[in-house]
Amino acid sequence: MSHAAAEATSPAPYPATDRTVPTRARERASYDRELVHGLLDQAYVCHLGFVRDGAPVVLPTLYGRVGERLYVHGSTGSRPLRAAGQGDPGLPVCLTVTHVDGLVLARSAFHHSINYRSVVVHGTAHQVTDPQEKREALDALVDHVVPGRAADSRPADAKELAATAVLRLDLAEVSAKLRTGGPHDEPEDLALPYWAGVLPVTTGYGTPIPSEDLDPAVAVPDYLTGA
Amino acid sequence: MSHAAAEATSPAPYPATDRTVPTRARERASYDRELVHGLLDQAYVCHLGFVRDGAPVVLPTLYGRVGERLYVHGSTGSRPLRAAGQGDPGLPVCLTVTHVDGLVLARSAFHHSINYRSVVVHGTAHQVTDPQEKREALDALVDHVVPGRAADSRPADAKELAATAVLRLDLAEVSAKLRTGGPHDEPEDLALPYWAGVLPVTTGYGTPIPSEDLDPAVAVPDYLTGA
Repeated sequence: MSHAAAEATSPAPYPATDRTVPTRARERASYDRELVHGLLDQAYVCHLGFVRDGAPVVLPTLYGRVGERLYVHGSTGSRPLRAAGQGDPGLPVCLTVTHVDGLVLARSAFHHSINYRSVVVHGTAHQVTDPQEKREALDALVDHVVPGRAADSRPADAKELAATAVLRLDLAEVSAKLRTGGPHDEPEDLALPYWAGVLPVTTGYGTPIPSEDLDPAVAVPDYLTGA
Repeated sequence: MSHAAAEATSPAPYPATDRTVPTRARERASYDRELVHGLLDQAYVCHLGFVRDGAPVVLPTLYGRVGERLYVHGSTGSRPLRAAGQGDPGLPVCLTVTHVDGLVLARSAFHHSINYRSVVVHGTAHQVTDPQEKREALDALVDHVVPGRAADSRPADAKELAATAVLRLDLAEVSAKLRTGGPHDEPEDLALPYWAGVLPVTTGYGTPIPSEDLDPAVAVPDYLTGA
């Protein structure tokens, strides 16, 4: 496939808007759709912001992605989900996902930083009312945390589905922001006797801990061991 | 020391307010001051929420703690810091810190969860104008990410201090929320042939990567190697 053909099939980037163009460090911003999808798919906890009584609220929550839609879920009694259910306007939200890759140590305190990759999604969340979309969203949520798990667990029954509210947020006003590489010290600071560089931050998984009431005949599935 | 004496010296918990009492899973909430401090000190990236043009904005940022005060910093040109500088009222914010400890796999999709420890701080952030408090806040920010680093780097000079805005958020309306332990499956699901338990999530540090322009004579400091 030629380079031109590859470009032709690349999805268009997210449009830059007043909300998604940073006021500074613009070179760190990206609107690349595949980059954004990748960053979203590598995490499973987001921080969801909404406004309650005029004040901001930020809560950690799980999320899933299906194409250009994100889903979060919760009890039908939870505050953001009740708020989003109050009529057609939906709930204005900001959904942010952050990967921390390293601590950046400069000779000067001022130039200390972190290497990170983040995605910020602005939009309006709406309650999912279609039963089929709701089921697919819940499968996506489970598979987002542990790929393959939705098919290897008991699906939600009618009562559980009724107790669960799902919010949909379309990926329309989206930006990524990334910092990579080492510190950027002032030239006159380079000879100072302070160590400078990056301390990588790593995340991983430990050994699966079986539930105390698990039948010992049930083996640890491959999707938990990377086998 | 008697138990009564130990209780007398324990700090009072944060008061529970309408905003900090969850609508559900109240047993997971805590207002213990030392628990909150510990959770805040074990992390260095928070998600800061504020309202702009009526809509929520959630951005990842570094923070530091000095007693019952949190500090975040940024360019004097950044949006939240400019907003907080516009007069006495300050900027209503919600600052959230989340530790993810494990993925909780239940036999049923519905009872999947994660083990986490989070802190949510509601309040109004104010720009720090006192030069001495600003210096202490910036030291706290650096030492929060890498303990001991503030004293082992060049302090900010007057120009850098002028270019940096610092916001203070008092720890007054604060709650922690924790989930620990294994899955809670329905009794009728226990015999299903699905693995159940917890996959621990771990975070750590890699080998320090020196800056390309670092004098090889400068050794990696002990505070980066845990030595």
